[in-house]
Amino acid sequence: METIPKENGSTTAATPIRAATNPMVTPLLTDLYQFTMAYAYWKAGKHLERAVFDLYFRKNPFGGEYTVFAGLEECIRLIANFHFKKDDISFMRSVMPNCEDEFFEYLTQIDCSDVEVYAIPEGSVVFPKVPLIRIEGPVAVVQLLETPFVNLVNYASLVATNAARHRFVAGKDKMLMEFGLRRAQGPDGGISASKYCYIGGFDATSNVAAGNLFGIPLRGTHSHAFVSSYMSPDEIVVKSLRSHDGSSTCMDFLTLVRTWLSKLQVMRSGIPNFCAVALALNDLGYTASGIRLDSGDLAYLSTEARNFFLSVEKEFNKSGFGKMAVTASNDLNEETLDALNKQGHEIDAFGIGTYLVTCYTQAALGCVFKLVEIKDQPRIKLSEDVTKVSIPCKKRCFRLYGKEGYALVDIMTGEDETPPKVGQRLLCRHPFNESKRAYVVPQCVEELLRCYWPGSSNKPREELPSLNKVRERCMQQLEQMRSDHMRRLNPTPYKVSVSAKLYDFIHFLWLSEAPVGELQ
Amino acid sequence: METIPKENGSTTAATPIRAATNPMVTPLLTDLYQFTMAYAYWKAGKHLERAVFDLYFRKNPFGGEYTVFAGLEECIRLIANFHFKKDDISFMRSVMPNCEDEFFEYLTQIDCSDVEVYAIPEGSVVFPKVPLIRIEGPVAVVQLLETPFVNLVNYASLVATNAARHRFVAGKDKMLMEFGLRRAQGPDGGISASKYCYIGGFDATSNVAAGNLFGIPLRGTHSHAFVSSYMSPDEIVVKSLRSHDGSSTCMDFLTLVRTWLSKLQVMRSGIPNFCAVALALNDLGYTASGIRLDSGDLAYLSTEARNFFLSVEKEFNKSGFGKMAVTASNDLNEETLDALNKQGHEIDAFGIGTYLVTCYTQAALGCVFKLVEIKDQPRIKLSEDVTKVSIPCKKRCFRLYGKEGYALVDIMTGEDETPPKVGQRLLCRHPFNESKRAYVVPQCVEELLRCYWPGSSNKPREELPSLNKVRERCMQQLEQMRSDHMRRLNPTPYKVSVSAKLYDFIHFLWLSEAPVGELQ
Repeated sequence: METIPKENGSTTAATPIRAATNPMVTPLLTDLYQFTMAYAYWKAGKHLERAVFDLYFRKNPFGGEYTVFAGLEECIRLIANFHFKKDDISFMRSVMPNCEDEFFEYLTQIDCSDVEVYAIPEGSVVFPKVPLIRIEGPVAVVQLLETPFVNLVNYASLVATNAARHRFVAGKDKMLMEFGLRRAQGPDGGISASKYCYIGGFDATSNVAAGNLFGIPLRGTHSHAFVSSYMSPDEIVVKSLRSHDGSSTCMDFLTLVRTWLSKLQVMRSGIPNFCAVALALNDLGYTASGIRLDSGDLAYLSTEARNFFLSVEKEFNKSGFGKMAVTASNDLNEETLDALNKQGHEIDAFGIGTYLVTCYTQAALGCVFKLVEIKDQPRIKLSEDVTKVSIPCKKRCFRLYGKEGYALVDIMTGEDETPPKVGQRLLCRHPFNESKRAYVVPQCVEELLRCYWPGSSNKPREELPSLNKVRERCMQQLEQMRSDHMRRLNPTPYKVSVSAKLYDFIHFLWLSEAPVGELQ
Repeated sequence: METIPKENGSTTAATPIRAATNPMVTPLLTDLYQFTMAYAYWKAGKHLERAVFDLYFRKNPFGGEYTVFAGLEECIRLIANFHFKKDDISFMRSVMPNCEDEFFEYLTQIDCSDVEVYAIPEGSVVFPKVPLIRIEGPVAVVQLLETPFVNLVNYASLVATNAARHRFVAGKDKMLMEFGLRRAQGPDGGISASKYCYIGGFDATSNVAAGNLFGIPLRGTHSHAFVSSYMSPDEIVVKSLRSHDGSSTCMDFLTLVRTWLSKLQVMRSGIPNFCAVALALNDLGYTASGIRLDSGDLAYLSTEARNFFLSVEKEFNKSGFGKMAVTASNDLNEETLDALNKQGHEIDAFGIGTYLVTCYTQAALGCVFKLVEIKDQPRIKLSEDVTKVSIPCKKRCFRLYGKEGYALVDIMTGEDETPPKVGQRLLCRHPFNESKRAYVVPQCVEELLRCYWPGSSNKPREELPSLNKVRERCMQQLEQMRSDHMRRLNPTPYKVSVSAKLYDFIHFLWLSEAPVGELQ
């Protein structure tokens, strides 16, 4: 069991951190060039140089102006258990046959005891350019972490954001169920989708493995194959049904259903059939759950079904029957939910699959992992495309809140700057556009980057919260966003800024930096 | 170790089938409703009824007219090791607290010893409506397999097809490298992408874990962070380099590079720098691998680089220098490859990531799993949308080839029909459109569905071929397709047909079948 230093200097046994959920997440889950670069650093005697990398993204997905950050726990689990096994080393020797034995001995010794990880809490609402994770450590080790960190954060954040967007359109009172396992990109595409859609605001999943792994509530409907496995009602052999309280047994449930059906023969559709069964069940003390609509005009059919349920309630004096749950599924996505809202519908629960879990409208988030400082020297990546210029330096990041409790702006500062203070006027500058600047007087200041892995430093480590806590954080953070940032059409961009000092430094560096790749 | 019956009736020990590559692929990786349906079948005494399900898709992806079938091996691995562990059962009890103990005892006993799986070989080119996999067995067990089978086939086939399409555009002589791990949908989104892109015709991956698991060749370039970790050439401490044959040591390699650079000072770009290093390395008996272009106008830059290499070859009489490899990466996809071809370029190798592995232009393939027969009774799924009507019956499927060796048509027949014969005229009918029919005289007949899991039957089991064999099959099958089916713009649909007998039966069933869900 590991021990970590406490804030007061004493050390205590912390909760041990388990391995990554997916056993395939090992130190080999990285790009080959991370190993060849590690070798190059080692060969040049640079591998122990202390480097700082920022993991961030450049553009919010789905044409929106916000992103939900997810995937952090799996990153921390990876580094907490990061080491190469004998077999890994043998494999790497076969891949890099010209490298010295000493390099492989070095690889054998690598762990993350000297790596520090600072991150925005998982489930937070986040914005472009602000580091989600800041990783410090020996450059060769941190370089090896680039690929798995980006992999673990990219899809997790993308699908959590997609889920949050679906929740935003569906409204708070609807039940949202993730039904995507069969269409997901591979087995843990499905398992990850279930986890991160739950964080983003879904209520349940159909994925039993995810329910087992994460304790997510499980829900389902029924399969068409079951229905079509019956040629006719004559095939129903077991006709009796005991009443719910066990006090009596109906010897021919089918006849009871048919009796009800004859009273309901108004509408030629599945609805009277369902109601007949539900009413027969009701006679025996059971409560039917509801219906699922899986095709056709969902707005119309749900309204018709609701009217039928209400007329049954009235006609037969069955209190509550009108509130029977209507579930809809059938290639639903943000657009169709929005269209249903506009038409008016009577759906209580949505089962959403393909478009949600594969993030069909934008299947990737472009997280990057950039060197911002090495040996205490800030580094900048220049590009003709200003959106690709990185923000140099080891930084602190803050979210400033206004009077109404809404988030106003995120600001990045150099590490040694005085942090923003409540009630104190502060100049927030666009990192690259000179004319964009504003004074802000924050009513509340939240430091965004927290220490999740202290390495050999003295800092206290944030515990990894439970999945439900992460989900609660997400729901709370989405609440704290001004609605104009959240709307689907033409949302207002949320402002991300740098301090005056950092602005000046970026532009000093920009001018002084020689083009990358020039030896002279 | 299992034993399987041989064709001649004797049994022999077969190669044991390993568990699925991803340890998260367990019998719990399914939708909740598969368990509730299994319970419903069990409760109705129907769970042992022998059912036949077809796994197929309805539409080729990416606007194309072909699909590469992949994912079969993982399906077979799942069923070969299919059983519920004690913990699984405890979990299911907690999820379904109202079910009888006897049901969970039944679950405990379930395996796939009584399930038969017939499939088209992995790596084959396949078409809509034709079953990729036909699964027969006790209905409750086969129902549990629906979700994991569809999950394992959907993404695998989608990304293999995407890779094949990229290969088609790039041409056979280019090196194609899959660089998608960091942008893939989760860890095994990345690992699966590497495997199935290789099957679809890629040459290598950057993903070390996939290289380790599957023996796929590994390739990589170099990282920007390594370049920017150097403030200036003064930081290069180790300046000496031993010659490749070990006979001498250059004490100041940097000066050697600068000497070459002064001879090359023609072009203000990274190319002279690279050439100076390559030439200095060449002096010491090493061969530089090449350059990577990661931004800018790839067609122009590659041509300029090639010209520079050729002029270096000529100027300094360095034989072969003009053939220096040019690798390109930078958000490449089918469209950009096509555009590069049209402009003319000098790129030898492409590194392709995001668009390839996430299947950005179409992030999901819609495989379905439909009941086609139960207790020897054919079942059909009707729908107002004719593309959603299923083709009933336990079927055999054949591919008919013409004189030039190209595939002409796929045909499905009832199980007991006489199979198509070489040289014999055969009527092939569109399954739903009366007017679409043609006589075909096949020059070669290939039976598509083979037995990969004989269950308790007497049939010999196909061995699971190696990854390289699957890849070869794919390359070969793509070759056997007529080019008009393969082209990117307006490809000709490949014909999928049914026998006259099956056609008549479908339409007899269609007319006689009462709408699903009606009790009367």
